[in-house]
Amino acid sequence: MFEYSAPVKDMSFVLNELAGLSDLCELPRFEETNPELVDTVLEEAGKFAVGVLAPLNTAGDLNGAQCVDNAVVETAGFSQAYQQFVDGGWAALPGNPEYGGMGLPESVGLAAMEMWAAANMSFGLCPMLSQGAINAIESHASASIKNTYLEKMISGEWTGAMNLTESDAGSDLAVIRSSALPEKDYYRINGTKIYITWGDHQMTENVVHLVLARTPNAPEGVKGISLFLVPKFLVNSDGSIGDRNDVYAVSVEHKLGIHGSPTCVMSFGENEGAIGYLIGEENKGLAYMFTMMNHARLNVGGQGVAVSDRAYQQAAAYAKDRVQGQAPGDREKGSIIRHPDVRRMLMVMRSLTEASRALCYVTSSAFDHAHHAVDKQERTLANFRGELLTPIAKGWSTEVAQEVSSLGLQVHGGMGFIEETGAAQFMRDARITTIYEGTTGIQANDFVGRKLMRDEGREFGRLIEEVRATSDLLSVGGAEFSTITASLIEGAKTLEELSGWLLPRAKNNQQLPGAVAVNLLMAVGTVLGGWLLAKSSLIAKEKIQEDEPFYSAKMVTARFYAEQIMPRAGAYGKAVLSGHDSTMALRDDQF
Amino acid sequence: MFEYSAPVKDMSFVLNELAGLSDLCELPRFEETNPELVDTVLEEAGKFAVGVLAPLNTAGDLNGAQCVDNAVVETAGFSQAYQQFVDGGWAALPGNPEYGGMGLPESVGLAAMEMWAAANMSFGLCPMLSQGAINAIESHASASIKNTYLEKMISGEWTGAMNLTESDAGSDLAVIRSSALPEKDYYRINGTKIYITWGDHQMTENVVHLVLARTPNAPEGVKGISLFLVPKFLVNSDGSIGDRNDVYAVSVEHKLGIHGSPTCVMSFGENEGAIGYLIGEENKGLAYMFTMMNHARLNVGGQGVAVSDRAYQQAAAYAKDRVQGQAPGDREKGSIIRHPDVRRMLMVMRSLTEASRALCYVTSSAFDHAHHAVDKQERTLANFRGELLTPIAKGWSTEVAQEVSSLGLQVHGGMGFIEETGAAQFMRDARITTIYEGTTGIQANDFVGRKLMRDEGREFGRLIEEVRATSDLLSVGGAEFSTITASLIEGAKTLEELSGWLLPRAKNNQQLPGAVAVNLLMAVGTVLGGWLLAKSSLIAKEKIQEDEPFYSAKMVTARFYAEQIMPRAGAYGKAVLSGHDSTMALRDDQF
Repeated sequence: MFEYSAPVKDMSFVLNELAGLSDLCELPRFEETNPELVDTVLEEAGKFAVGVLAPLNTAGDLNGAQCVDNAVVETAGFSQAYQQFVDGGWAALPGNPEYGGMGLPESVGLAAMEMWAAANMSFGLCPMLSQGAINAIESHASASIKNTYLEKMISGEWTGAMNLTESDAGSDLAVIRSSALPEKDYYRINGTKIYITWGDHQMTENVVHLVLARTPNAPEGVKGISLFLVPKFLVNSDGSIGDRNDVYAVSVEHKLGIHGSPTCVMSFGENEGAIGYLIGEENKGLAYMFTMMNHARLNVGGQGVAVSDRAYQQAAAYAKDRVQGQAPGDREKGSIIRHPDVRRMLMVMRSLTEASRALCYVTSSAFDHAHHAVDKQERTLANFRGELLTPIAKGWSTEVAQEVSSLGLQVHGGMGFIEETGAAQFMRDARITTIYEGTTGIQANDFVGRKLMRDEGREFGRLIEEVRATSDLLSVGGAEFSTITASLIEGAKTLEELSGWLLPRAKNNQQLPGAVAVNLLMAVGTVLGGWLLAKSSLIAKEKIQEDEPFYSAKMVTARFYAEQIMPRAGAYGKAVLSGHDSTMALRDDQF
Repeated sequence: MFEYSAPVKDMSFVLNELAGLSDLCELPRFEETNPELVDTVLEEAGKFAVGVLAPLNTAGDLNGAQCVDNAVVETAGFSQAYQQFVDGGWAALPGNPEYGGMGLPESVGLAAMEMWAAANMSFGLCPMLSQGAINAIESHASASIKNTYLEKMISGEWTGAMNLTESDAGSDLAVIRSSALPEKDYYRINGTKIYITWGDHQMTENVVHLVLARTPNAPEGVKGISLFLVPKFLVNSDGSIGDRNDVYAVSVEHKLGIHGSPTCVMSFGENEGAIGYLIGEENKGLAYMFTMMNHARLNVGGQGVAVSDRAYQQAAAYAKDRVQGQAPGDREKGSIIRHPDVRRMLMVMRSLTEASRALCYVTSSAFDHAHHAVDKQERTLANFRGELLTPIAKGWSTEVAQEVSSLGLQVHGGMGFIEETGAAQFMRDARITTIYEGTTGIQANDFVGRKLMRDEGREFGRLIEEVRATSDLLSVGGAEFSTITASLIEGAKTLEELSGWLLPRAKNNQQLPGAVAVNLLMAVGTVLGGWLLAKSSLIAKEKIQEDEPFYSAKMVTARFYAEQIMPRAGAYGKAVLSGHDSTMALRDDQF
């Protein structure tokens, strides 16, 4: 396996030139932050990812987490790495300063998280899931709970885990059966949860579970679900660790990838009943989960970017290293990177990776504004934008990761199929990203059913106008932008046509939105990715003297994307416009 | 894992209605064959695949082949299954009757092979590779070699293995270094070969290796490569097993998939030198390999179809079985097959699987005519057609298998990522098919550089006319065919435009063909798949009274493909027409 190289230059480019980092640094919350500081932080984070996390990636794959006597034993070396992670302050990067966090923008936190995931996706999942739990507690828990748990969780001394799924309640949380019986100032929690990422381990002295469960006589369905905090060890009033709580890992799954990340079956209340503390009010659990959903989903989108980039780096390094045959036009044997089809694969990988990174960071930046802008109207608009983009950023970036990681293996030829090479692990690890935190189908339904239809497509229309504004700028930018300009004009037209066609029909046809939503999501992701690369190419042309290799590559990559990737939007669009008739025409028994 | 069901009905439909089985049965070689007999054979083959091979598929994955003391030990149970395979006469299905084979058409053999591979891809590789060795011996070896080896190999009593690749000679066989020193009436073979599928095992008393090596003073490059037969055990003049030859497996690879199929490093002549017998003449080895290449590649295309079908069956069964949530428009909770996006995924899988099956069988049928038609001109034309279609059938069907097997996992949601479900194995197994017997890039170069350019696209033009002829028939077939007709007209136009654009440019630009070939291959595969499904829908309409569930599903599947898959051809086409500039523009050091 070739070494991971932290893509700080491209991250910094996207944060500064596309995601408006300097504007963010003007906000009161970020007044101690500036772009130079962010660069320094990312450089150091990159060194940590490369030096500490990446060397453990193969070990995590080969010697995955095990469950022994109701306790999870993580891969050897992970515990020491995690301690370094905490000691270096990396867990606290985006955390609220009130509780000891560094208070950097979420978009910067996303960039750091991309590096943890690229270096070692299994490891990176632990702080990612903790972050979700931290957000839920910060947004909805009582002051007492916050004071007891947040500082330790933000520092990383304790980790967090999200306990949602049950064996019959996956995408459909309405049928959750775990119970919570009130008792004094706490509840007794009983039930079994599955697919609990990092549900147990030995890296920290405590694990803080957030658990969805039903109180007695709660309404049926999603309106009767409450959220509870259930620590592995109870916490004494002085903050020290108390009794072992009745929550145990009973097994870990045997998975296709991310072997280093324990996916636990968690049992609550097998003995005396686990003690849990209500977060917020009863019966509002699902709503609380949803407020975090955009954040968690965007982080998974960032994992998609991470594994795409890692697969690209590995494939490019292999293609430069591997000598085989003579490329057309060459006089001597050379590296396979000289072969046009290898280069085509690398360009597909590169352009999709950069486009998906740009889309995820821009989305995250919208939430930074949504949470910290001074003006309320600005916060509302930014939140609307972030919410609209999230299912695209998650769904499209993770679908992109499937293509990119598979191409990465393909570049290696027969070697790619041999596990020692490492390319196969990236593909296996990537495969979960289109599934967890909501499948691509669920992202697409969220995009159409919630995000597009809630305002009759107005915010989406504003986005299309921004795409058009970029194509206007490009059209006066010279002949070198002509194919990019044409692709953006075409792309904007496609998006307008699709939303214009779908919106009036979606309300009167229950099956249509679900049948066309994924193709629509893919069309939108493809065009927005092309838009952000197009913006990049304009900036690159201005700055080309500053760093010719970097900026000229940006320009070429944007053009390649316009020529070879953007046409896909038309194909997705035609699939949307064909509606749902043939999709739904077979009877169940004909399958 | 859900049980495999042999798709004999669809196989029979394709063989009879699209691949002209009854015409084949008129040829002297096949005069004892008729469509009813073929149906019976496929039914019985299906029972064998379902009853004997499929139950060993998970075992092969979990307990893959091992190399112990220079000998490969295959998965427990494989040896007994193999013996049943031989006893049942399944190895001999397409074999030459002169040597005890059943003499069925290759296209029927391909259908049977699809079932072996769908039930157990690792197992199916053993007879598939043997078939390649049999073909090489039959076409090029001396009478003495044929008499010694063919009967035992065709019956399956001995297996065959193809030894081409060396660590520095993969896609580029010109640099092969294995040596062959003449001695008496044989040669001494020395060298190390890698990636040798089923290079050793304990299922049969002998393994017959075909090995590429150089004789002393042979010309450099591909013109100095000869082909040798190197048996694991020498054969006495009475046909009995003699001394152990100096050829040993030294290790097996740790692979992403097909764990049950040993991928061996083979060492020839580590001790006294392995005894090998020249096949045909010296220095013609590569030419001999190429005569078999189309056959081997088409078989891998068939594996793509096999794993696609298996993944589809598994996903459809799971989707019917798994109850989760309430589909839009339904009043009660139901199986996830009621959800439009799940149904969309299943329809994509189903339509791509049926289209790729049709393309592979039609290609194979062309070779049946090429080898056995009475009229020489007919044989030549059929061979031309088969050769033209082979890289498309191989390249496109195996790329399809990546998409279909990944979607199969996706249909399962979180369960798909858990290995016990089985969907992940299909995806892992499928991943090799775009690589071995020539990567998709190599198929695409073969299509453009050899198959399209050799006659300036004339045979391809004839194919496009056949597509047009089908759209003419459809256009008078009624309104229900209107979207299919439109998609075919558009598809034919795209193919004509692409070949017309590429052919004059390809000769004067060395980098262009390689840069655009894969997109062209994918466009051609997509349109030809749609063409064959369109033909199917015409026949289905005529026959709908005979079997409404089957034929109405055919019509719906063809329409779905026309609406949702055919538009991709336009996107591939635009990528082709954008040429190679942006693909080749970065300097190596910018990657």
